[in-house]
Amino acid sequence: MNNTIHKVKVLPNKIIIEAKENENLMSALLRHGIDLGGVCGGKGLCGKCLIKVIEGKTSETTVQEKKWQKAGGFEYRLACQTRILSDATIEVLETFVGSKMKILSWIIEKKFELEPSVKILSLNIKKPSLEHQEADLNKILSESKLQTFDPRILKKISHNLWNANFKVNAIVYNEELLDILPQEPKTKVYGIAFDIGTTTVVGYLYNLEDGSLISVRAKYNEQIKFGEDVISRIDFAGKSDKNMKLMQEAVISTINSIIEELVKAANISYNQIYDMVCSGNTVMTSFLLGNDCHYSSKAPYIPSFTLPVKCKARDLGIMVNQTAYIRTLPLISAYVGGDVVADILVSEIYKASEPTALIDLGTNGEVVVKVGEKFLATSCAAGPALEGYSIRNGMRAVEGAIESVSISEDGNEVYYRTIGGSKPVGICGSGIIETIAWMKIRGIINKTGKILEGSSKRVFRENGELQFLLAKEDETMNGKKIVITQTDIRKIQLAKAAIFSSLITLSRLGNIEVLDLHKLFVAGAFGTYVDPFYAIIIGLLPDIPRERFIQIGNGSGAGASMLLLSRKKWEEATDIVKSVSVIELNLIKFFKDEFINATYFPHKNEELFKNSLEKLGLL
Amino acid sequence: MNNTIHKVKVLPNKIIIEAKENENLMSALLRHGIDLGGVCGGKGLCGKCLIKVIEGKTSETTVQEKKWQKAGGFEYRLACQTRILSDATIEVLETFVGSKMKILSWIIEKKFELEPSVKILSLNIKKPSLEHQEADLNKILSESKLQTFDPRILKKISHNLWNANFKVNAIVYNEELLDILPQEPKTKVYGIAFDIGTTTVVGYLYNLEDGSLISVRAKYNEQIKFGEDVISRIDFAGKSDKNMKLMQEAVISTINSIIEELVKAANISYNQIYDMVCSGNTVMTSFLLGNDCHYSSKAPYIPSFTLPVKCKARDLGIMVNQTAYIRTLPLISAYVGGDVVADILVSEIYKASEPTALIDLGTNGEVVVKVGEKFLATSCAAGPALEGYSIRNGMRAVEGAIESVSISEDGNEVYYRTIGGSKPVGICGSGIIETIAWMKIRGIINKTGKILEGSSKRVFRENGELQFLLAKEDETMNGKKIVITQTDIRKIQLAKAAIFSSLITLSRLGNIEVLDLHKLFVAGAFGTYVDPFYAIIIGLLPDIPRERFIQIGNGSGAGASMLLLSRKKWEEATDIVKSVSVIELNLIKFFKDEFINATYFPHKNEELFKNSLEKLGLL
Repeated sequence: MNNTIHKVKVLPNKIIIEAKENENLMSALLRHGIDLGGVCGGKGLCGKCLIKVIEGKTSETTVQEKKWQKAGGFEYRLACQTRILSDATIEVLETFVGSKMKILSWIIEKKFELEPSVKILSLNIKKPSLEHQEADLNKILSESKLQTFDPRILKKISHNLWNANFKVNAIVYNEELLDILPQEPKTKVYGIAFDIGTTTVVGYLYNLEDGSLISVRAKYNEQIKFGEDVISRIDFAGKSDKNMKLMQEAVISTINSIIEELVKAANISYNQIYDMVCSGNTVMTSFLLGNDCHYSSKAPYIPSFTLPVKCKARDLGIMVNQTAYIRTLPLISAYVGGDVVADILVSEIYKASEPTALIDLGTNGEVVVKVGEKFLATSCAAGPALEGYSIRNGMRAVEGAIESVSISEDGNEVYYRTIGGSKPVGICGSGIIETIAWMKIRGIINKTGKILEGSSKRVFRENGELQFLLAKEDETMNGKKIVITQTDIRKIQLAKAAIFSSLITLSRLGNIEVLDLHKLFVAGAFGTYVDPFYAIIIGLLPDIPRERFIQIGNGSGAGASMLLLSRKKWEEATDIVKSVSVIELNLIKFFKDEFINATYFPHKNEELFKNSLEKLGLL
Repeated sequence: MNNTIHKVKVLPNKIIIEAKENENLMSALLRHGIDLGGVCGGKGLCGKCLIKVIEGKTSETTVQEKKWQKAGGFEYRLACQTRILSDATIEVLETFVGSKMKILSWIIEKKFELEPSVKILSLNIKKPSLEHQEADLNKILSESKLQTFDPRILKKISHNLWNANFKVNAIVYNEELLDILPQEPKTKVYGIAFDIGTTTVVGYLYNLEDGSLISVRAKYNEQIKFGEDVISRIDFAGKSDKNMKLMQEAVISTINSIIEELVKAANISYNQIYDMVCSGNTVMTSFLLGNDCHYSSKAPYIPSFTLPVKCKARDLGIMVNQTAYIRTLPLISAYVGGDVVADILVSEIYKASEPTALIDLGTNGEVVVKVGEKFLATSCAAGPALEGYSIRNGMRAVEGAIESVSISEDGNEVYYRTIGGSKPVGICGSGIIETIAWMKIRGIINKTGKILEGSSKRVFRENGELQFLLAKEDETMNGKKIVITQTDIRKIQLAKAAIFSSLITLSRLGNIEVLDLHKLFVAGAFGTYVDPFYAIIIGLLPDIPRERFIQIGNGSGAGASMLLLSRKKWEEATDIVKSVSVIELNLIKFFKDEFINATYFPHKNEELFKNSLEKLGLL
């Protein structure tokens, strides 16, 4: 086994990633948080992972790639088919790359002015003498026109000033002096944007002087051990102060281990990280700060705080420079958190002049609608079904998950592909949605979601429950069949109804119909992978033309990055939050009816989905 | 052995102290930082410790006390002769008490307006509903008209608010929300003023609502183990980061153990302490904050900082409420520290319209002179001799130290008394000064400080050095004779010359003569015990009428207390510091001559000491 590690520079953003000898490039990219958005599970079918190899030795072109080269040009390769054999430079192609990369590039292209909170000031301090005994700090503050300083600097200020012969760089956070460093050799300063997801935490390391993204790392949130969704975690944390402390320590440990990897990858020191911005939903933000969300989790759902919080990273035990601040995004309500604020910032929905909506698809779904001056937001408990949890054979979107499905016209044959191309183990979110969509198209379920006996050879009853067979025992990894049950379909019905009825309710409160939406931003990890075509068929997303959908991928990480790099955006964020009205759906009289209507496939009112249903001959 | 502990309430300030069964009242008072200023070593001779026993059982009146009762009234006792036999209430008499008590009383009598940084706001928060989902913190901030909050409050804000049914008290530090507590039962809030001396650390616990002094505790500064004076400690701390950390931890450990005692004595919780102000010289202040003073200890003596520092107590590991701030006083220079700023505040020398001076007598002497607009300060290395260190038989002012001396007219008999009345072990600062003064009066030393052979039967030569015998072998505790050597006298000469020449130099820079001083404040522990009569004879203090001397005792602790209790004084302090000009004596041309002139006993220019010398028939 050759354990050589190659460095791969990824253009256009000059991110350096590491790949093992002969490692699949797509795996290496994914491991570093760069997801090109491929949907074929690395089989070279979808063509989404097109790249150029600029420099370096890679594996030979495969049969699949040849097809794409025919269409696109011989300089292209597919990342999923390319293995790394030396240090290399590759280029990711904007037109093809998935949304996560796109957003990050977009930030780096500076659609906003780079203005981080941390600045480096070059100071030439007057040398002291018996006649001029002014204190070192006083001179530095007056030279840099600052009033405040972090008391930790007192430990070393004189040593650093005198050793550098009074030519120093001041590291300044807004109006506060954080550090004094020699001018030569010049120290680079960094910041980290964190997306603290319920399931996954992602850290983005930036150079704060030029705004360049240096490295990205992702890890599962260690809080998962206390519960997979926020409700079970709130239950756990609320039981005792000790539990709350464990919960807080889990996310801080996750953050610290991501920082450790980022620091190692960039070959820098913890002390060079002088700023941190964290985006997350209200519960994740609260847990980070030690709040147990006890009162926000039950009616009338009052959050402890919604203001942005700024504290010293040392107060939370986070391993960056001990004078650095950590900021959390402002929140909107108990269930519309900083991640949605980030989505709003990244999508710029707040600037929209035409009716526009934003949906963050996750265990907790959030919906935002902007119509004229009206800027409405709400959240709905979609539940974990859309992400493959709580489904009989559901699983996360990892190797072995059926992620794409097709059913033959007679309803008797099923085609599927799994992530990684292995034998199937279960089915993930996008697979479930595609299955149900095809069951609808092929008439295996009716409008109400009922599985129709005799509609397909694959429909059978077991333990009294109707089921649809996706994969037989001999096809699967563990020798157990994979099915979609009537109960699974009911769960998806409730989830998609929650999302769609929220969207239609907010639209009606904004005096528009859902089909009037000019643009619809879809955010969230799941939202990035789901194909709008199938989502429309089941009535999860509205039946508007495909080009009106914009997938913004990990808006939470992108938004945190923006706020790390732009003081102006940070100030804007507070104003934007104030302009959002949170709608408590339980108080809207017609919501209940809308919810029930939305449980149909695709909807009780088929007129709303006329375009798609007509094309498929279902209307 | 009866180990019963009695509570003794000390009027007029209602301080509660603890005394063991049968414990001498003066010892108990001293242990709690209350020094009535007795000078006879507890022998019932000086009458300075007169008190009234209001309530409780005490020991019977002694012969010594009867004399004082004759003069003062039968209700009086002497604290040094009174033993405590039950819980009791005593009253300390303002007209008799020493200066430390006086200063504290004076603070409590509110010669300034009570305006602590910590306030309690009573809030009635609107109850939430589905229609009104505003975050708990937002409502509290808007109700209390605050913008900022300590992030630590996020942990418990909702619990405290909901449990108190939305009727809460907000604990506010200036404009920052620190805590939310139920209105019933009402929590009292406290603050501590600290005097961080090189040798002794004293903590004063105050109720921040009414400004009353609750308890006082003193402990030796644990840094002593790293060196008795600041120079040796700077040497130690500068050797490594680890040493610096040990040095910082030592003072923090001292502070924490004082807090522990204060909290216990007052029967309160650490969490009720919401503010702390620390006064100390530049080195003590720096060590507390982790700065090693490396550069300020050598020419050109540049301090790292002189600004007041404010940080969270938790950042230093200090055991008070974790949202509390700790502030250090502004400093003036590397050798004129926060303790002198405190002296200046307490003496109000900055307001003086007549020529006024302030001398803080310690290992490091500080001198301040105010003449019209001129406000000059300097420090001088008096050395430890005045405190009994570095003297052949010198010792601290503890039991067994000769503290007062008299020499018979023929120079052959010596009378002395020791602290505690035991056989002598050595001699402390005041004893040395009195001895040298009497040697001067009796013609045993001449003007230059030379011991004259044959001037007294007690003058002898040993190992080539002239010496004066204070106590013979058979008189002392350890059977070794106690002497004052020619070298000892030289050391005192240098010390007193440093102080006096500083005073005369600043006076001349202020265009006055030293005898023009209208008032002279004497601060510092040693400054409290030294008798101006003897200090004038040796030329340590100027020959001005006794009533112009004002002993202010522990100005450092009193000043810290003022700043804890008054925001206005805190703001004034910064301005006062700015108005002080520090004089670097080495840059003053005539200083060297003044220093040499001041080494004479009392001075080369005897005209300066004409009044006293004439009265004694020495001129």
